[in-house]
Amino acid sequence: MPADGNCLTRDAFLGGLLQINQPRLGYRATADAVFLAAACPAERGQTVLELGCGAGTAILCLGKRTKALHLTGVELQPDYCALARQNADENAIPLNVVEADLANLPQEISGQSFDHVILNPPFFTSGTRADNSGRARARKEDTPLEMWIDAALKRCAPKGHITLIHLAERLPDILALLRPRAGALEIKPLASRANRPASRIIVRAKKGSRSPATLYNPLILHKGDAHDVDRDSYADAAKAILRRGEPLIF
Amino acid sequence: MPADGNCLTRDAFLGGLLQINQPRLGYRATADAVFLAAACPAERGQTVLELGCGAGTAILCLGKRTKALHLTGVELQPDYCALARQNADENAIPLNVVEADLANLPQEISGQSFDHVILNPPFFTSGTRADNSGRARARKEDTPLEMWIDAALKRCAPKGHITLIHLAERLPDILALLRPRAGALEIKPLASRANRPASRIIVRAKKGSRSPATLYNPLILHKGDAHDVDRDSYADAAKAILRRGEPLIF
Repeated sequence: MPADGNCLTRDAFLGGLLQINQPRLGYRATADAVFLAAACPAERGQTVLELGCGAGTAILCLGKRTKALHLTGVELQPDYCALARQNADENAIPLNVVEADLANLPQEISGQSFDHVILNPPFFTSGTRADNSGRARARKEDTPLEMWIDAALKRCAPKGHITLIHLAERLPDILALLRPRAGALEIKPLASRANRPASRIIVRAKKGSRSPATLYNPLILHKGDAHDVDRDSYADAAKAILRRGEPLIF
Repeated sequence: MPADGNCLTRDAFLGGLLQINQPRLGYRATADAVFLAAACPAERGQTVLELGCGAGTAILCLGKRTKALHLTGVELQPDYCALARQNADENAIPLNVVEADLANLPQEISGQSFDHVILNPPFFTSGTRADNSGRARARKEDTPLEMWIDAALKRCAPKGHITLIHLAERLPDILALLRPRAGALEIKPLASRANRPASRIIVRAKKGSRSPATLYNPLILHKGDAHDVDRDSYADAAKAILRRGEPLIF
């Protein structure tokens, strides 16, 4: 990021419990990263891999909530790898960051399987301006969703869990990709308002399971039926996750 | 049904607007049939095919709501075919009932395509007692879900709509089956209570479309967080559909 004069911001997550350095104009973590971490059922002592960890927000949120996890992040872009390492250090959370392409993981990663794999694959939304190479790269689906989910399934231990967050509109693709090799699919929609369709979905899957799926009622992120000027209009349940680092109970 | 001494009941649907004769102990229509009909966006003059129409409850609910539809029902079991014809007559709704196996549809059906195909494929639930051959047959998934959806896709006209209701736990299978040949998938969960996962899902799909999916917020069927003694505890939105025949707005 320094190459194009882009500078960093230092942003508070989990009500200030976690401080994340990230580029002002590049790909930036959103509430999605926090919800992803909140939905991962990792327990003390387990191994967790994040595919495409960026500056580390999601996996560090998880490391903050649950102690004594063995955390690994894979990230393609060297600048984000450096930031993830810096953020891990500054927040005193051990994190092994590996610079690698999902399509060609090094032996260090491909030789391991993990109790949990988490991922927040990049996507285009209609409002996205690709005004920075880092953002453009992360936002553009030049690594197809298939490849993300395939890598997650491969790196997940038998009976381990995959947890992902993505656009709700991709639910059919995601379920179709997970279904042949995972079960006990748990779908948690996130909707901005009680009167709106889901904008995001969190999907949890258990590798190798044949158990049926569960479609949970949505987490409604904001109070009221429309946006108001109050910027922090999060509903209580969302606020507990975003500001206090509580787990997302399906 | 008369063969095993089973007798009929005459049940009111849509607040009494529709009267349905059905076996007391066999496979009986539930609220699912009414919700299915309420979710089908058929308009005046269009053709509608129901796969597995049973005694005709769903397609006759639709015929009651929307006038001048051309309705066809396919049903495997001769007794239910006879009941569907009788119910259509008694409710003065024109309905062509064809006795046939989905896996081997006669030319009369296989030579046509329909603006809308609706289906409520039978399923097992853990509480189901297979105490009657008609019920056992309809409840057992001896016609796999794949075959139901394949038949629906085949009989649906290009850009026509498929509308189905099924167990929420089968959502991954349903989306995976529809996705290669249909788009604009619209998913409406039905949940018994606001604090419960979805029990049913209604899925609408447009054949040949490439449009993204939409996951709507659930229709909550009952008021309160738990069952109470009041048998008609339906929430207002559900009641409007079940008792007044209103459409289900996603």
